[in-house]
Amino acid sequence: MSVSMNRRWLFEKRPEGPVGAHNFRWTQAEIPSPGEGQMLVRNLWLDVAPTQVLSLTAPPEAGGRPPGTLMEGFASSQVIESRIPQFSPGDIIYAASGWEDYSVIDGKGYWDAIKVSPGVSPNLAAGALGITGIVAYFGVTEVATPRPGETFVVSAAAGGVGSIAAQVAKILGLRVIGIAGGKEKRDWLLSEARVDGAIDHRSEKVASRLDALCPEGIDIYFDNVGGPILDLALERLRSHGRIVLCGTTARYRPTTRVPGPLNYAQLIMVNGRMEGLLGRDYFHRFPEAIASLKGWLDSGQLKTKEDVVVGLEYAPAALARLFSGDNVGKQLVKIADPPLNVDATKVLIGGSS
Amino acid sequence: MSVSMNRRWLFEKRPEGPVGAHNFRWTQAEIPSPGEGQMLVRNLWLDVAPTQVLSLTAPPEAGGRPPGTLMEGFASSQVIESRIPQFSPGDIIYAASGWEDYSVIDGKGYWDAIKVSPGVSPNLAAGALGITGIVAYFGVTEVATPRPGETFVVSAAAGGVGSIAAQVAKILGLRVIGIAGGKEKRDWLLSEARVDGAIDHRSEKVASRLDALCPEGIDIYFDNVGGPILDLALERLRSHGRIVLCGTTARYRPTTRVPGPLNYAQLIMVNGRMEGLLGRDYFHRFPEAIASLKGWLDSGQLKTKEDVVVGLEYAPAALARLFSGDNVGKQLVKIADPPLNVDATKVLIGGSS
Repeated sequence: MSVSMNRRWLFEKRPEGPVGAHNFRWTQAEIPSPGEGQMLVRNLWLDVAPTQVLSLTAPPEAGGRPPGTLMEGFASSQVIESRIPQFSPGDIIYAASGWEDYSVIDGKGYWDAIKVSPGVSPNLAAGALGITGIVAYFGVTEVATPRPGETFVVSAAAGGVGSIAAQVAKILGLRVIGIAGGKEKRDWLLSEARVDGAIDHRSEKVASRLDALCPEGIDIYFDNVGGPILDLALERLRSHGRIVLCGTTARYRPTTRVPGPLNYAQLIMVNGRMEGLLGRDYFHRFPEAIASLKGWLDSGQLKTKEDVVVGLEYAPAALARLFSGDNVGKQLVKIADPPLNVDATKVLIGGSS
Repeated sequence: MSVSMNRRWLFEKRPEGPVGAHNFRWTQAEIPSPGEGQMLVRNLWLDVAPTQVLSLTAPPEAGGRPPGTLMEGFASSQVIESRIPQFSPGDIIYAASGWEDYSVIDGKGYWDAIKVSPGVSPNLAAGALGITGIVAYFGVTEVATPRPGETFVVSAAAGGVGSIAAQVAKILGLRVIGIAGGKEKRDWLLSEARVDGAIDHRSEKVASRLDALCPEGIDIYFDNVGGPILDLALERLRSHGRIVLCGTTARYRPTTRVPGPLNYAQLIMVNGRMEGLLGRDYFHRFPEAIASLKGWLDSGQLKTKEDVVVGLEYAPAALARLFSGDNVGKQLVKIADPPLNVDATKVLIGGSS
């Protein structure tokens, strides 16, 4: 597919209910040119994550995205033209860009653009080896301070971060219980991720299932959702237990007002710890995470599950899937395949699509 | 005062509003005799702490105290008769006993009875050098992982734990802001504890005062209260900030339903940590804490503030003071002075009071 115009999704209006295409505006513009210290990239795979909705629901005074501006996000992209010494046309990178075919970026957004190794496909670069996998990796290996044999519970366990966190915990020798919604996810957890126990929160009572699967309580709870499951985990936290706060999807829905964890004082009773994890603070150690995850992928110890929506035009729908619970695995939007023609001149003056 | 009977406070009925004498029953009994592996002690100073109310409000199935039983608690006491090899008549100890003149204990309640050094007065043993000071010490030195120059905020800062935590943080080179209710407490914090800033939450808006006193945010929040102040601190938590959960007095009132911290997800945004502190897990390091605190007391770096109620008959009123906010400093109940006649026979057959 050749594209001579730049298709773009602008943020249009703050969600008051479930997020979807109605919150965005589909538009087209000229393909931009990079200035000094910038590069033009073709976006290949969009990394779609629940946290992106926070920039939509937050009011502007709290850092929310101004309506009428490009919807930003991480993607794997190919460099078309570069006025940055470290990047050359043809390079595949993983960086903050946006929901558009082409972006002009300085490679400094949120964190420095990462050059993707030749052996890594661009879907993996935006998925299991992107911030999704990196956050899962540091959440388990660092924040959770895991010890072999401990009981590790993870919510949204069939989602992007959760599915990797569950498997990294298994690799480190923990006993892993995954919580997810629906039979398909539960089955995937047991058969592919090979966790020790799985709970389908749609058809099962989480409290009694946790009691059955964790009779001695929970050492580590890796929380991707917040809400009532966080309270259930707090109630069952063992002495010196840890809660890794990675996400709070229960709060990302603007229509529901989710209370704070009522049982947080349990942290006192068990000398417990609840710790948040923001990936970018680990930037200097991203190579370590990517290398470890890639090694486990190559050896077959780590399975990836990707939920791929094809076409930039479906990016809002892909974001909505994260909140309807329809996605199984890491949510991605495929825009284009590499290798593209990296002669920027040709692209810019190329034939109509 | 000589006492030939054992005056006792029994727990009578669960509080449905503010705790007070109506929740207890005043009774008398024979002075008991220690069996094998037990000792008879005379209680000198009762250590009155907010957490004690938890055993009253909790339903029996959740570990609440059964009505009609002795109100338990820590105290400094003098050994009268001992059938435990490590303890001798005359020893001053700090241990779990109860709201009564005499207790028969095995010295194993909650943690092992601690022998108080000869140079330590029994009020200090039950106060600044008891679990109150110990919890403040480990909360600041261990859980908070403080670095000199960091901004340290503490609530209930003129209370038992808070007043010591504030001063230990000062000794370690932190910038300390104390929050307390009322002018007297605020003045004490500034003039005696010599904190860098103090907020009177009764007459001042805590949010705007925190903004003014902590323009760059909060590195460490030492939380003794929970409730709205915890949310204000979370909002202002800096990158890699820490919250030491020591108490949740806002939750100890059975009549109010306090929500969990709404802003807990801020822990994700700042890679923050919220960690509970239960003193008994540090038992093996109590001597270190006591030695450090005593050193600072002796050198004048640490000031103690004690709120003393005289007479066992006022123990329920002393507990109530912690929730009305009337106490300034560590709440203690003085029952008796040492040295007592340690000839148990004499006490048992002594004259009437």
